[in-house]
Amino acid sequence: MHTPGSFHFVVVGGVAAGASAAARARRLSEAARITVIERGPDVSFANCGLPYFIGGEIGSRASLAVQTPQTLKALLDLDVRTSTEAVAVDPVARRVHVRCLASGTTEWIYYDRLLLAPGAVPLRPALPGIDDPRIFTLRSLHDMDRIKAAAASARKVAVIGAGFIGLEMAEQFVRLGKQVELVELLDQVLPPLDRPMTLLLEDELRRHGVALHLGDGIAGFEDGKGIVCRLESGAAIEADLVVLSIGVRPDTALARDAGLRLGPRGHIVVDEYMRTSVDGIYAAGDAVEVEDLVSGVRTSVPLGGPANRQGRLVADHVFVPERAVRYPGALGTAIVRVFDASAGITGWSEKRLRASGRPFRTVTVNDNHHAGYFPGAKPLMVKLLWDPETDLVLGAQVAGAAGVDKRIDVLATAISGGMSIDDLAQLELAYAPPFGSAKDIVNLAGFAAGNTRDGLVDPVDVLPDDPEVQVLDVRPLALSTSHPVPHPRVIAIPMPELRRRAGELDPARPVVTVCALGKTAYFAARILAQKGLRVRSLTGGLRARIDPRSPAKLPTP
Amino acid sequence: MHTPGSFHFVVVGGVAAGASAAARARRLSEAARITVIERGPDVSFANCGLPYFIGGEIGSRASLAVQTPQTLKALLDLDVRTSTEAVAVDPVARRVHVRCLASGTTEWIYYDRLLLAPGAVPLRPALPGIDDPRIFTLRSLHDMDRIKAAAASARKVAVIGAGFIGLEMAEQFVRLGKQVELVELLDQVLPPLDRPMTLLLEDELRRHGVALHLGDGIAGFEDGKGIVCRLESGAAIEADLVVLSIGVRPDTALARDAGLRLGPRGHIVVDEYMRTSVDGIYAAGDAVEVEDLVSGVRTSVPLGGPANRQGRLVADHVFVPERAVRYPGALGTAIVRVFDASAGITGWSEKRLRASGRPFRTVTVNDNHHAGYFPGAKPLMVKLLWDPETDLVLGAQVAGAAGVDKRIDVLATAISGGMSIDDLAQLELAYAPPFGSAKDIVNLAGFAAGNTRDGLVDPVDVLPDDPEVQVLDVRPLALSTSHPVPHPRVIAIPMPELRRRAGELDPARPVVTVCALGKTAYFAARILAQKGLRVRSLTGGLRARIDPRSPAKLPTP
Repeated sequence: MHTPGSFHFVVVGGVAAGASAAARARRLSEAARITVIERGPDVSFANCGLPYFIGGEIGSRASLAVQTPQTLKALLDLDVRTSTEAVAVDPVARRVHVRCLASGTTEWIYYDRLLLAPGAVPLRPALPGIDDPRIFTLRSLHDMDRIKAAAASARKVAVIGAGFIGLEMAEQFVRLGKQVELVELLDQVLPPLDRPMTLLLEDELRRHGVALHLGDGIAGFEDGKGIVCRLESGAAIEADLVVLSIGVRPDTALARDAGLRLGPRGHIVVDEYMRTSVDGIYAAGDAVEVEDLVSGVRTSVPLGGPANRQGRLVADHVFVPERAVRYPGALGTAIVRVFDASAGITGWSEKRLRASGRPFRTVTVNDNHHAGYFPGAKPLMVKLLWDPETDLVLGAQVAGAAGVDKRIDVLATAISGGMSIDDLAQLELAYAPPFGSAKDIVNLAGFAAGNTRDGLVDPVDVLPDDPEVQVLDVRPLALSTSHPVPHPRVIAIPMPELRRRAGELDPARPVVTVCALGKTAYFAARILAQKGLRVRSLTGGLRARIDPRSPAKLPTP
Repeated sequence: MHTPGSFHFVVVGGVAAGASAAARARRLSEAARITVIERGPDVSFANCGLPYFIGGEIGSRASLAVQTPQTLKALLDLDVRTSTEAVAVDPVARRVHVRCLASGTTEWIYYDRLLLAPGAVPLRPALPGIDDPRIFTLRSLHDMDRIKAAAASARKVAVIGAGFIGLEMAEQFVRLGKQVELVELLDQVLPPLDRPMTLLLEDELRRHGVALHLGDGIAGFEDGKGIVCRLESGAAIEADLVVLSIGVRPDTALARDAGLRLGPRGHIVVDEYMRTSVDGIYAAGDAVEVEDLVSGVRTSVPLGGPANRQGRLVADHVFVPERAVRYPGALGTAIVRVFDASAGITGWSEKRLRASGRPFRTVTVNDNHHAGYFPGAKPLMVKLLWDPETDLVLGAQVAGAAGVDKRIDVLATAISGGMSIDDLAQLELAYAPPFGSAKDIVNLAGFAAGNTRDGLVDPVDVLPDDPEVQVLDVRPLALSTSHPVPHPRVIAIPMPELRRRAGELDPARPVVTVCALGKTAYFAARILAQKGLRVRSLTGGLRARIDPRSPAKLPTP
């Protein structure tokens, strides 16, 4: 029905972007009619919490589904229709055709402004055996309930895809005492990151008994004792339960049929105010393509934070367009916890920069998450990428056991603020021994980047094979003996002896200095460079390149 | 002696700024002579760790004093002279007169460039009885050892001054089982912050048995059973041990005598490259006056982080002046932990803005430190101050049980990056349930600031006395009954009933909406404002204004 007179804001999709838009809309207008159409049975639920309820870390299902159509009516005067599908949009008449999934009845709902926030659906490729009921994807509370029920009797679980959800599921299944096999097409876990920054997570997974199958794809499923996952390598994994977490695709059939412009991978194209190509229709959340904040190229960031903020911006533009703020573009900031380790990213990775051909420079630094002399200090590693023309930060990755989120957030803020590596060096962050260091690792990353830019150090990121190169281990002898550098030709000269013993090196041949964390190797490189040697330094040290737990101190006797 | 030929960099003061400058100098020049003159017996020690060794939280004294003159010689080829005092500077001849405190011998040391990093000394006003040997200040390892020894037999301890060190000492003395009296001249702990942001710390101190004497100064000391601290109010506190932590003054007699320009409170005036008014002499650390990053006014920030970075900048300007980066100015970012709570600040406080007459606006928001549905979520409060002309962030304060440091660091970065309240609203921070929220509290602060700027809400920061005003409590009835708003005239209408019952309010009289955290009160204000009422909303809710632990949820039955 079409009630003339009161402005009608219709939202298709009632989870992150849709729910945020509807709530914000009500703050802006008590007079408007606001209707939310949600295909699923639940609205505004905490989808990022699903893995943790399966694993039992979140004990209360109700805590994930706080709002109901009734509470949203009471608090926000929203008309929320769950289990209702939007089947067509008529942009000329400004109406949406909806079908109640229970009764099958349909109606046209007229809108003044429409927001499409349909989200994304998990990829489920047409592989042999894909319809086996023991293969699950995780997107909704219903999916969650089904997986939790199936997991109760499962002993072995295969997780296909080691992205954020795959890693969270692997962790939670271990928590439930399951034997977990984790399969990933790439040769690393957490594909958005550069591989060195994922070594700690790999190690953490293995320590907790997760069997990793990296660089191997899923080829199909067969019936066996359980379900047999056949990998592209030919390997077979038998499991009682499979979770497929290999990515999502935007759920944009409705948008396409309505004539909205879609991007190359099917996302709804929106402008900086989240307007689609069709007048009166906005889109937000996992289904849209937005600008990348760093490069301006079109990208898609199917994450809860951006979805929520985009939804809010839509309501602003609908109700107070003169005050609406532009969407600044997406950074792709993300983080995952895997047992006692975590890793995160913001902005561009090295592999993405390489693939795009954009010039960059990078350093990796290691330190503790707070003052090393204060009990409980945990190692932390930061990789920084910047533009050699402008010195502006392009991206960063952080891995460690504590304080990862803080550094990712600081670096995300720095990128948003258009800050340079020198700005990072000068950041005045909060320091008290329980919280940080007088020189925080973010400052250190800025220092190291500046040193690289200024030619004080020339970082390398692999140990060279070239027999011409002298690989110099400057760690204490106890370490160079107990944890030798895995290289056939290593010269060991502990740092305090280097000035005296530099003559042992052939000045005609290049040197690569190596230590556990990269810092002492830099110090050594400075000494040798000033003696006229051609010297480079392994950035991030052995910990970043070879062993994420490479010891930095002498073993206590 | 004057060895011509090799460039000599002389550093007076070997702790934070001095040690950083010397270390950086060596990276930049293997050829230079680098001499460090330190009056105390120790060099490059972790002065921020001193309270924690007294309290036993740091168990190893050696962890605080990692470097010795010997290790600095071996690693950095530094000539470090401890227990040596610089008694005069002759800027014309470019030489420093030094005296060995042990032998009494003196010599002139010639320099090419000199860095003065003398630090600050604790204030010890000339009060009656101030020379009592049971009154201590804390600045050096020696002070630390003396306090630790004295504390062993003390039962009652008085801490005078509730700034950062005073709070840390109070906490650590409680840890040792002492009865602690904490005296502060202002009517709040942690004077750099605005009072509402310190209520949580006050509460935390009281919960741990610390007796607070706020708004009362120390008048003198008398001999009694122990030592009697006579307060300005006339009150007397008996203690076995007194720690005086009422601030520091720059240790700049040497600089003054050398003819360096000093600021109004005795700090060495430096430019953006840390150069003093005298050619060839730099200064850095607690003894200097620098520009404030927010306002450009001259300020002094006696903190470890700035000192370390300033020292590094000095070495850059001495050895590679063409590459030296300017000191961007100080933010005064600081944090303190008090038992299970912490609080921090960056940039300007409301009281400082008021005192300077600079226009500002402010909001306070409450939320959890990570997703509320994930176990372990702890309440967190952010106060944001911004410039109403430019919308740029001027300052922020954070208090809570977890995640305070992260938000302070993000906000410090935002101020450094010249970011606005709209930028905060749009920050894409790391979100996974163990680490954050889809809308982080920093985003919420940006939202609330934007709402205030746009006139969607008109915040008040006290409950009005005016009998004309209708104070409307929109919390659930169970809360408004069990934890009533401390105000003589309160109307209680729970939020879900407000649209229906708004007629119970007198539309001719102004309304102030109140809830626990400030959020529901804002929602209520939006409804009433759109009904035409004159309405304001208590920013930060009861938790920010009246009770830092004001419950936000219904008590579980």
